[in-house]
Amino acid sequence: MKIAVLGGDGYCGWATALYLSAKGHSVVIVDSFVRRQWDHELGAQTLTPIRPLSERINLWRELTGNNIEAFVGDVTDYEFLASAIQEIEPEAVIHFAEQRSAPYSMIDRRHAVFTQVNNVVGTLNLLFAIREIVPDCHLIKLGTMGEYGTPNIDIEEGYISIEHNGRKDRLPYPKQPGSFYHLSKVHDSYNMMFACKVWGLRATELNQGVVYGTMTDEASMDEALINRFDYDEIFGTVLNRLCVQAIIGHPLTIIDSADATARATATLVAEHFPNLTTTDKPTTTFYATDSIEKFQRLGSNFLGQPVAEVNLIDLGG
Amino acid sequence: MKIAVLGGDGYCGWATALYLSAKGHSVVIVDSFVRRQWDHELGAQTLTPIRPLSERINLWRELTGNNIEAFVGDVTDYEFLASAIQEIEPEAVIHFAEQRSAPYSMIDRRHAVFTQVNNVVGTLNLLFAIREIVPDCHLIKLGTMGEYGTPNIDIEEGYISIEHNGRKDRLPYPKQPGSFYHLSKVHDSYNMMFACKVWGLRATELNQGVVYGTMTDEASMDEALINRFDYDEIFGTVLNRLCVQAIIGHPLTIIDSADATARATATLVAEHFPNLTTTDKPTTTFYATDSIEKFQRLGSNFLGQPVAEVNLIDLGG
Repeated sequence: MKIAVLGGDGYCGWATALYLSAKGHSVVIVDSFVRRQWDHELGAQTLTPIRPLSERINLWRELTGNNIEAFVGDVTDYEFLASAIQEIEPEAVIHFAEQRSAPYSMIDRRHAVFTQVNNVVGTLNLLFAIREIVPDCHLIKLGTMGEYGTPNIDIEEGYISIEHNGRKDRLPYPKQPGSFYHLSKVHDSYNMMFACKVWGLRATELNQGVVYGTMTDEASMDEALINRFDYDEIFGTVLNRLCVQAIIGHPLTIIDSADATARATATLVAEHFPNLTTTDKPTTTFYATDSIEKFQRLGSNFLGQPVAEVNLIDLGG
Repeated sequence: MKIAVLGGDGYCGWATALYLSAKGHSVVIVDSFVRRQWDHELGAQTLTPIRPLSERINLWRELTGNNIEAFVGDVTDYEFLASAIQEIEPEAVIHFAEQRSAPYSMIDRRHAVFTQVNNVVGTLNLLFAIREIVPDCHLIKLGTMGEYGTPNIDIEEGYISIEHNGRKDRLPYPKQPGSFYHLSKVHDSYNMMFACKVWGLRATELNQGVVYGTMTDEASMDEALINRFDYDEIFGTVLNRLCVQAIIGHPLTIIDSADATARATATLVAEHFPNLTTTDKPTTTFYATDSIEKFQRLGSNFLGQPVAEVNLIDLGG
């Protein structure tokens, strides 16, 4: 199958492109390299030095005989995107080409506006390009579990049946996004839902949770194929940060409030550092970005000891 | 009270500014005149020739002694907006400064993208400006009933209590917008809901239905204060179009599918043209933009006769 991977130089995109290429699909990467640019902006970098895309693609061809094409440009530039889609004629498009960091979107007004314009316009452009050029193409789009927030009812995928005042309907599941980034994904979801309804496009949205780790079967074939490992406070997932902190002996900073993350980190740390017991007490400083009470509850679950003092960080703007 | 009316040169904005000024409030209009520009783009114009804002404001002062200030600029330009808010120090902001035509947003990709960027960025800028400069200011924002679509359950304002699999929560009411314009309003709603939640802003959203008519008590004081009357197919409401068509003897074109509109039009026509009976049969051509079946049902309600042939118009892009 001819598959375009938008954002294929990024973390999820690169692993996906290699995986699909290894399966025998004809893969084309579309990327503007803006993710590499954000590293420069933030003075951060991936712990695993990633090679330029052209080198990675050449090596992949040498190792496997599989060719991955690359189109360099920005999906918010419709002229570029349309000509790329025209030339590629994809049967499926996997769309990772968005600004994907909640903290980045919350830095200030400029970053909030950039994130929403970048993500919404890129996806709108893609919807129009598919409609115009390859209407039968299947769109696979990355959303996020964070679109749903943390409702007190089971989360249903896409739609939910609601009975209200004696009548019933199946309606879009209510969203409660928690950052300007998460909001941009909700905007995308609504735009896609509309495009599918009025134009009959085919789209699948993946509202995935946290993705972590560096290795896949394909990326492990050669060190030069290695994927990103971000551990900074803007693009790094908290799991990566905690692992790095544990390894270099830095006091662990718990900055996330999700039960699942706390559990996963505890498992990882126990596995890799069996000698790290509660008698090796580190100095800890706690920062929470939402409820202090919730943080204390989750933090004490994770550490197995009470968490007394917590500093509240206002993520707003 | 010091009130800023963003989009105060437009249809709802002008009537609102005069009304509040007459009530003794200190009113400031913020407008970029882009609405007048769209008339040039579309080769359309208001049936009622509206005067330049400066003339209208001067006349209002002569007639009432009330001063309305004006700031000319675009709310998507944060530097302008922030300096205006800084200078005005409003206690309330009424935000009409958006592209408000669904058909305009559906002309093509460029108009869809423009509408969403214009509306979303303007509202984001305003939220940040209020937070930075006048955090106690009350924001009143125009949404639209069209955010809700036509669900088969009662529409609740803002939130709905949902019981699902034995648990309960009060969640944002599901939205089903029907154009790229309506989508932009849904995006705004989510952004506002978030800003209120994390920053404690105060905002009221008016999801109003069709607004029509030209005269208010204030606008009636002098012909030079008259408001817009749009009857073109992009910015004119269908009520205005039907009234104009009836008056000039042009065959009525029913292009709207809303029961309420059909009923209101029938009432208006009956009132103003008591001699217009079903024996004065016009030549009619029917165009529907969604379901032909629904159009036939509503159209026959309105006309009191079967509607046989209906042409489907694809509004998409």
